[in-house]
Amino acid sequence: MAVYTTVSDDALNAFLSEYDIGQAVAFKGIAEGVENSNYYLETTEGRFILTLFEKRADPKDLPYFIGLKQYLAEQGFPCPRPVKAKDGLALRRLADRPAVIVSFLTGLSPKRPNPQQCKAMGIGLAQLHKAAEHFDMTRENALGPSSWPELWRECSASAEALQPGLSSLIEDDLRTLEQAGLDEANLPRGTIHADLFPDNAFFLGNTFAGAIDFYFACTDALAYDLAVCLNAWAFETSGEYNYSKGANLIAGYESVRKLEPTELELLPLLARGAAIRFFLTRLIDWTDTPADALVKPHDPMDYVQRLIFHRSARRAEDYGA
Amino acid sequence: MAVYTTVSDDALNAFLSEYDIGQAVAFKGIAEGVENSNYYLETTEGRFILTLFEKRADPKDLPYFIGLKQYLAEQGFPCPRPVKAKDGLALRRLADRPAVIVSFLTGLSPKRPNPQQCKAMGIGLAQLHKAAEHFDMTRENALGPSSWPELWRECSASAEALQPGLSSLIEDDLRTLEQAGLDEANLPRGTIHADLFPDNAFFLGNTFAGAIDFYFACTDALAYDLAVCLNAWAFETSGEYNYSKGANLIAGYESVRKLEPTELELLPLLARGAAIRFFLTRLIDWTDTPADALVKPHDPMDYVQRLIFHRSARRAEDYGA
Repeated sequence: MAVYTTVSDDALNAFLSEYDIGQAVAFKGIAEGVENSNYYLETTEGRFILTLFEKRADPKDLPYFIGLKQYLAEQGFPCPRPVKAKDGLALRRLADRPAVIVSFLTGLSPKRPNPQQCKAMGIGLAQLHKAAEHFDMTRENALGPSSWPELWRECSASAEALQPGLSSLIEDDLRTLEQAGLDEANLPRGTIHADLFPDNAFFLGNTFAGAIDFYFACTDALAYDLAVCLNAWAFETSGEYNYSKGANLIAGYESVRKLEPTELELLPLLARGAAIRFFLTRLIDWTDTPADALVKPHDPMDYVQRLIFHRSARRAEDYGA
Repeated sequence: MAVYTTVSDDALNAFLSEYDIGQAVAFKGIAEGVENSNYYLETTEGRFILTLFEKRADPKDLPYFIGLKQYLAEQGFPCPRPVKAKDGLALRRLADRPAVIVSFLTGLSPKRPNPQQCKAMGIGLAQLHKAAEHFDMTRENALGPSSWPELWRECSASAEALQPGLSSLIEDDLRTLEQAGLDEANLPRGTIHADLFPDNAFFLGNTFAGAIDFYFACTDALAYDLAVCLNAWAFETSGEYNYSKGANLIAGYESVRKLEPTELELLPLLARGAAIRFFLTRLIDWTDTPADALVKPHDPMDYVQRLIFHRSARRAEDYGA
């Protein structure tokens, strides 16, 4: 197996003895999530996912991520619920890494979301924002606008190798975004998922069944989360913006939480900023990912195409609002 | 995901409509098996494993493998049972590959089998041989003694690179094995698993709970299967033979099926032959495996160490018989 970290049956049994969830009867490394090692775990009492946090996860962030999932699950939002061990703690250690067991969530990730699923995702996203409204932990967005110039310095050389002339386009984007001052804009803030791609959303048919992988969650502009979703859900693999998917995503969102005028006004820049964020981190991953990784890195070129659309968008209406 | 073949939710749903096993509610690529793509599949009716056969599997062998699992399951031997679609056929196509859905088998693979598990494995192996006694399909062992000289021609250069001087030792082994004429020996034959490593065996505690991955199964000497297990179960990672594990494996086996005098007499050579078979294929895999494979190749050096033991073994008693 090439799951990043392997766990022997003996180590697993010793680990499970700290919990009240029975004995292991099945344990399989699964290809889910990009950053960590994940296992399907079945015990005599139920089904779970065991996550081992690999080196990229900052241990000081883990209580926030686990606290958030705990809080959302308590509010009835469908997400994996961290399981507490006998001592009351959910965050533990296994195989010399931080580890957590969470409840198993059913649902399938759509490969190519349909418009109904985009509507349901918009509703689900707003429900997530509402459910977390009074969550009292905070975390800065480590990949927010202020981080982009530094990420760019890390990968600007690779950008030019990817596509000659790309460098100066990205530099224009960064200049425009800096001038817009997204960080200082008076946007409603709260807890956002910040990485709600179809891979991280589960559906049963067209019904939203839950969100997973909260490891980029942070405190930031709520509309930025919607902007991430527009990038992740409303573009076709051809690179084309699917207006009806985007419109459904926004309409679904607004059926639960109305966007404020400032949020609508800044939507094109937020969408462009989100595209820059994913372009930059994907470009870095593209060159950095070890060859034996369980999960292949995503192609940064997808975001080069999205940026072309965002540069020409002027108003929220261009996205279907 | 880097499972060899990805299957979209839409393709999966269309595929499942050919069956009577309900709708998919969970679907995750799992790191199990070396040759094929495997998915954990949960439907509204139960849990299954979906296997897509990748290019290394010869399509003409698939009816044998699937027929064998079907037969063993009917005899009460614990193994994944192929699920027939509405048209009565278990072997189908998905994502342009042969595909099969089998029942989900619980159990954990031991990382370092204990002596009790070795005993249980010996019993389980003999039960497999008994259960398959009247199975009427046959398959030649494509990796049997007659294939070894050709495998050796493929990798003899890499052997010398692995360890200077190794080449001539392996050539001695091959000469000795050829002179012994294992293929012509009058050994009881039947259906064997031929690859029953701890990875392919499930336990609940110390109780044998089943075998998986029958993709090397074939018609060959029953004692050769025991010889494979001695290599796979009775050596420590240090390379040392664990006499009590080996003795337990043999005693477990003999508690169900007594070994005949010829089988006992040839056991050291069968064990040496099995070690040569795994050494050769591992050495070939070691150099051939693509860097993005889900499963890392096994180290051929493990078998260099085992061969040292086998060369010095003279009688079945040396293995604990």
